[in-house]
Amino acid sequence: MGMVGGGPGAFIGPVHRMAAELDGRIELVAGAFSSSAEKAKAAAAMYRIDPARAYVSWEEMLAAEKQREDGIDFVVITTPNHLHLPIAKAALDAGFPVVSDKPATATYDEVLELERVVAAAGLPYALTHTYAGYSLVREARAICASGALGKIRKIAVDYLQGWLSAPIEGTGQKQAEWRVDPKLSGPGGAIGDIGTHAFHLVEYVTGLDVTGIYASLRSVIPTRKVDDDCTALLKLDNGAEGVLLVSQIATGEGNNPRLRVYGEKASLHWEQEDPNHLRIRPASGPEEIRHAAGAYLSADARAVTRLPGGHPEGYLEAFAVLYREFADWLEAWKADKSAKPPATLPGIRAGVRGMRFIERAITSNASGNWIEF
Amino acid sequence: MGMVGGGPGAFIGPVHRMAAELDGRIELVAGAFSSSAEKAKAAAAMYRIDPARAYVSWEEMLAAEKQREDGIDFVVITTPNHLHLPIAKAALDAGFPVVSDKPATATYDEVLELERVVAAAGLPYALTHTYAGYSLVREARAICASGALGKIRKIAVDYLQGWLSAPIEGTGQKQAEWRVDPKLSGPGGAIGDIGTHAFHLVEYVTGLDVTGIYASLRSVIPTRKVDDDCTALLKLDNGAEGVLLVSQIATGEGNNPRLRVYGEKASLHWEQEDPNHLRIRPASGPEEIRHAAGAYLSADARAVTRLPGGHPEGYLEAFAVLYREFADWLEAWKADKSAKPPATLPGIRAGVRGMRFIERAITSNASGNWIEF
Amino acid sequence: MGMVGGGPGAFIGPVHRMAAELDGRIELVAGAFSSSAEKAKAAAAMYRIDPARAYVSWEEMLAAEKQREDGIDFVVITTPNHLHLPIAKAALDAGFPVVSDKPATATYDEVLELERVVAAAGLPYALTHTYAGYSLVREARAICASGALGKIRKIAVDYLQGWLSAPIEGTGQKQAEWRVDPKLSGPGGAIGDIGTHAFHLVEYVTGLDVTGIYASLRSVIPTRKVDDDCTALLKLDNGAEGVLLVSQIATGEGNNPRLRVYGEKASLHWEQEDPNHLRIRPASGPEEIRHAAGAYLSADARAVTRLPGGHPEGYLEAFAVLYREFADWLEAWKADKSAKPPATLPGIRAGVRGMRFIERAITSNASGNWIEF
Amino acid sequence: MGMVGGGPGAFIGPVHRMAAELDGRIELVAGAFSSSAEKAKAAAAMYRIDPARAYVSWEEMLAAEKQREDGIDFVVITTPNHLHLPIAKAALDAGFPVVSDKPATATYDEVLELERVVAAAGLPYALTHTYAGYSLVREARAICASGALGKIRKIAVDYLQGWLSAPIEGTGQKQAEWRVDPKLSGPGGAIGDIGTHAFHLVEYVTGLDVTGIYASLRSVIPTRKVDDDCTALLKLDNGAEGVLLVSQIATGEGNNPRLRVYGEKASLHWEQEDPNHLRIRPASGPEEIRHAAGAYLSADARAVTRLPGGHPEGYLEAFAVLYREFADWLEAWKADKSAKPPATLPGIRAGVRGMRFIERAITSNASGNWIEF
Repeated sequence: MGMVGGGPGAFIGPVHRMAAELDGRIELVAGAFSSSAEKAKAAAAMYRIDPARAYVSWEEMLAAEKQREDGIDFVVITTPNHLHLPIAKAALDAGFPVVSDKPATATYDEVLELERVVAAAGLPYALTHTYAGYSLVREARAICASGALGKIRKIAVDYLQGWLSAPIEGTGQKQAEWRVDPKLSGPGGAIGDIGTHAFHLVEYVTGLDVTGIYASLRSVIPTRKVDDDCTALLKLDNGAEGVLLVSQIATGEGNNPRLRVYGEKASLHWEQEDPNHLRIRPASGPEEIRHAAGAYLSADARAVTRLPGGHPEGYLEAFAVLYREFADWLEAWKADKSAKPPATLPGIRAGVRGMRFIERAITSNASGNWIEF
Repeated sequence: MGMVGGGPGAFIGPVHRMAAELDGRIELVAGAFSSSAEKAKAAAAMYRIDPARAYVSWEEMLAAEKQREDGIDFVVITTPNHLHLPIAKAALDAGFPVVSDKPATATYDEVLELERVVAAAGLPYALTHTYAGYSLVREARAICASGALGKIRKIAVDYLQGWLSAPIEGTGQKQAEWRVDPKLSGPGGAIGDIGTHAFHLVEYVTGLDVTGIYASLRSVIPTRKVDDDCTALLKLDNGAEGVLLVSQIATGEGNNPRLRVYGEKASLHWEQEDPNHLRIRPASGPEEIRHAAGAYLSADARAVTRLPGGHPEGYLEAFAVLYREFADWLEAWKADKSAKPPATLPGIRAGVRGMRFIERAITSNASGNWIEF
Repeated sequence: MGMVGGGPGAFIGPVHRMAAELDGRIELVAGAFSSSAEKAKAAAAMYRIDPARAYVSWEEMLAAEKQREDGIDFVVITTPNHLHLPIAKAALDAGFPVVSDKPATATYDEVLELERVVAAAGLPYALTHTYAGYSLVREARAICASGALGKIRKIAVDYLQGWLSAPIEGTGQKQAEWRVDPKLSGPGGAIGDIGTHAFHLVEYVTGLDVTGIYASLRSVIPTRKVDDDCTALLKLDNGAEGVLLVSQIATGEGNNPRLRVYGEKASLHWEQEDPNHLRIRPASGPEEIRHAAGAYLSADARAVTRLPGGHPEGYLEAFAVLYREFADWLEAWKADKSAKPPATLPGIRAGVRGMRFIERAITSNASGNWIEF
Repeated sequence: MGMVGGGPGAFIGPVHRMAAELDGRIELVAGAFSSSAEKAKAAAAMYRIDPARAYVSWEEMLAAEKQREDGIDFVVITTPNHLHLPIAKAALDAGFPVVSDKPATATYDEVLELERVVAAAGLPYALTHTYAGYSLVREARAICASGALGKIRKIAVDYLQGWLSAPIEGTGQKQAEWRVDPKLSGPGGAIGDIGTHAFHLVEYVTGLDVTGIYASLRSVIPTRKVDDDCTALLKLDNGAEGVLLVSQIATGEGNNPRLRVYGEKASLHWEQEDPNHLRIRPASGPEEIRHAAGAYLSADARAVTRLPGGHPEGYLEAFAVLYREFADWLEAWKADKSAKPPATLPGIRAGVRGMRFIERAITSNASGNWIEF
């Protein structure tokens, strides 16, 4: 694979590399890590790839790799959000399947364009909503689909972080800087950066679509141009309602997407900082804890663990599940261009829904009203 | 003390008895437990009090006890909400201090009347917001007051129960029946029954006043005449915002008020089903768990534990803290009619705030708007 | 009831008072709290009993109360261990049933004498092994009895405290002083003070008898005349083996008896600092958490909770369960002198087993060998 | 690298592959995965290596790779224990550095021989005691070394599994079969397979050496020729004592090495099934939870995390830390044959200590006595 972004100082680039390669199916061999030749070279050394394949622009990478016999067979995009669309478009135009970090684009209009491009290209496209790769998120999804909870009535999803509690964007912290700059991240701050993960988790696990939203966004750090703390009320297409809490100023929180789904018969509870346990609480009867890699789990959950029970798998392993499914799809697609993506792999539809979520949240917040999704 | 309500089948009456008597300061000696003579007698036997002091109406109890040399020295009200005002008024009129279960009355208008009556009577009046009696809730309050969190920015409070997930009010379940009948409970369902506890916890711990509210209430059980699932967004007088999740249809949940307070410097985390631990998470540095009865706790927290560390105290002990403080006040007041209540004991102001909360939540929900508190 | 011991500065006296009175069945009305007249008076004030019934010796209390029409109907012993036997004997000789704090006596020889006295007296006698009063310990016992674990193979019991990590017995700490003085506590230190609780938990929950022991005792604080850290290996009468870890120098530990029982089919896990949850882990299938007051619990477990699920009950409530069962027995015995004690209430047999445990542990440690129990 | 063992059906082979490659420093390119040509081929496909480099014997692999310009630069051994010595010897004799799964050999005599071979060869040799690779195990080690606990007095280490609760070795379960066959695993069963990990954790974290042992081993499954449940008491060189609980018949347990270290001033608590939290409990003051990747952690702990706080790292990541350190050493050694191994990487000394532990435990158990280590 060839990566765009992920140069020195990046967080998510090395994560993509480790995740992509974990199952021995994919190898990072080229990259447009930086427009600085020096940094591109440093990245090549860091990733231990051939320096000749560390390009200074994605255009150059696409062109050069296309010519090579042993050229990359897909592109992964790990840049700030504003570049997602142009890169994805160029890659797809050049015939390369794409794995993109989320959110899919910077704006809702952009994602609609991307949706058309993906459809026209007929090429594999996946979006790395990491948390969808956890085995027990798959189990939660299977439980919802099985009807074991009864009709779902209420959903509570949190995604709380504390790392933007202080205005560190003024201190040279690269990760913070682009995330709070609407030119680079798009109009959403926390709502885009992590809110889309929380939103995706809701639709992914429950199989329900959000149909209405009331959102309240604010910038607790007054100089910040994008939101850093958000609450949204959701209506879902089966009549259920949801509450979504997202914050990057929740001092002391690490990185904890957390989902609770309440049905008529039982509820389920999962949180990312304890990813190998899923709790089921029935209306009556004891609470149940399902452990990752249990032989009693659903096929979907069992399919994506690599280790026996009691051997914790974490964030990288979840991330790698998405790459594994992408690799499956890629192989199938190489053999048959009409190959369908795995049902469990987030793709362009997830991208459209996520961008819609940001746009709807901002619109609701501006109007102070509930709006249709 | 003399109790009104709490006859056979009641949950909270025996709780009041155990809590009131725990510290050996108060004794239940009379009651108007039921208007049925038979049930009143049964209650007398259950509580092991003199059957002659088990009255069939509170009017009778007040009159008779007033005459006795060894008469009760205060009244505790444990009836459904619609009787709180008339009983409290009658008791205060008769010169009896009052301990009342929450909410203070059935409606906001009623509590304003009660506020006047309490003020005019000049008698001790306390409201049993149980959770305020936990040692580590006191610690959380002390921490907020100390400024150790920095400016408070965000509050998340939950109070989730699952016991009304099904329409059990039709099955003879007495506890459910009156709670979902607006004639007995007032216009609020879950928002009144448990929402007031959650609301109280927010103001009690942070020392902040709620100044704005946006509430969404619904009845998930369609035949139910009051709300059973509620979400509210709150604005606080220092600019902080809050989210309040309250539900009685959260299948599988027991009884778990849970509070998170995020400041500039640190956050605190407490939940009632694990009441002997309080978590502090700083912006940097390790997480801290304070254990009940730790020698390092604030004076307010240390004052209300009865056991050394590692010996769990629970709901009854927290409840008994309120009675202990009421007993302190009662003794002081007997000696000096101008004696002030302990600052940590919920009183009529908490009652007014709580009823205001119900009224404002219902009004906001009806209008679909943020409103001033 | 009349108490011996429990004067000013005592920990366990007030605990007995609160626990005994919690259910409204028993009232503390007399005491020999201290041999100092002044302290006895102070205790009377603290316990709010008639000062005339605060005696300066237990002999006096027994004699005086025997004469009163409204005299006490049983005696509770809360003194240091060396007085347990003489007081129990005198009380039983005087016709008073006895509740005794553990261990039953100071030495094994003493408990054999006490066993004879109890048998001869034909009076109720109970031993407050507090942890046996927890609802979920009763559930664990019911599970073992039901065979749901299959044959029990391995038991691990801990009771770790840290409060004697430093030689605080030299600093005026009354609780520490008598516990490390063999003249007052008997030959066992930690092994007697808390080891007997751990040992009791094993036999109480599993229904198995210990038949062999290898013990290693030591005094980590070199000036200490009794053990403060102990490990014992146990053999049980069904072939199972056990490990018992007991320490009072486990710095940072509070008060956490913790039991794990491994059978052929499943294991169970309970710890006192989280007493309202019992974990069952089957050979296959999800882990299960049983919550106190669950409608699905065994009759024995349900019989001893006072509150609905989600309302934590703690140490005092567990303690009060033993008093409730004693009160049941006392009432039955008053009506019929041959009334049997509740099967779930620790009595003289538990006392004999516990003292045997101390003696056997010390003997094994001295010999460095496994010995028969 | 070239692997010996790890063919189809193996658990630990693929784990070594993923761990070795995670940081992009090492690549599996050859293997002697099986003596069956068919299985060797299948393994080549599974690992996606050149089928020409999938050999049917390690002798062949060593010979062939030695000839290649692009030959492997070290050997990893993942076979049953009885082959560890001959393979390690052959590899070292052929000039290849070695990474070996634990235990180092099948018997104590063998490890002494291996120790001589390693010393003579002057080549890097590492032993994959996985748990030593967790960041917070490194933190625990740094804390002990810092003196922050004060003098260490007591250690409790558990390693409990339940997967051998039933005699599954008779059912074709390959993992179970060789582990309970003394010809393949050596004389130790659970004590060797997982006991050595627990033992290593003790010495690794505390920096203390075990100097005495009393061990009790048994086979709960009667047909089993090796132990499956073990308890050992330990003496350490500073006077501390320890208790080690190891079992593979602890029904319901997953894979949970768990360490508690009690010092004069504080204790520390870590368990593998929750690897990203380390608890410190001081004699006084609140409990502290250190989170993986906290900026406040020791340099040793910070050096080995790949993700920001709140992104769980697990077993594979810990395993990969050992490979990263081996890669560091290998690179340094290529440049300078006298390069020292990283102090944190388990090597041949850990291997000797571990085999000594098995031998001493078996000897103590046979004699029924405490013995010198």
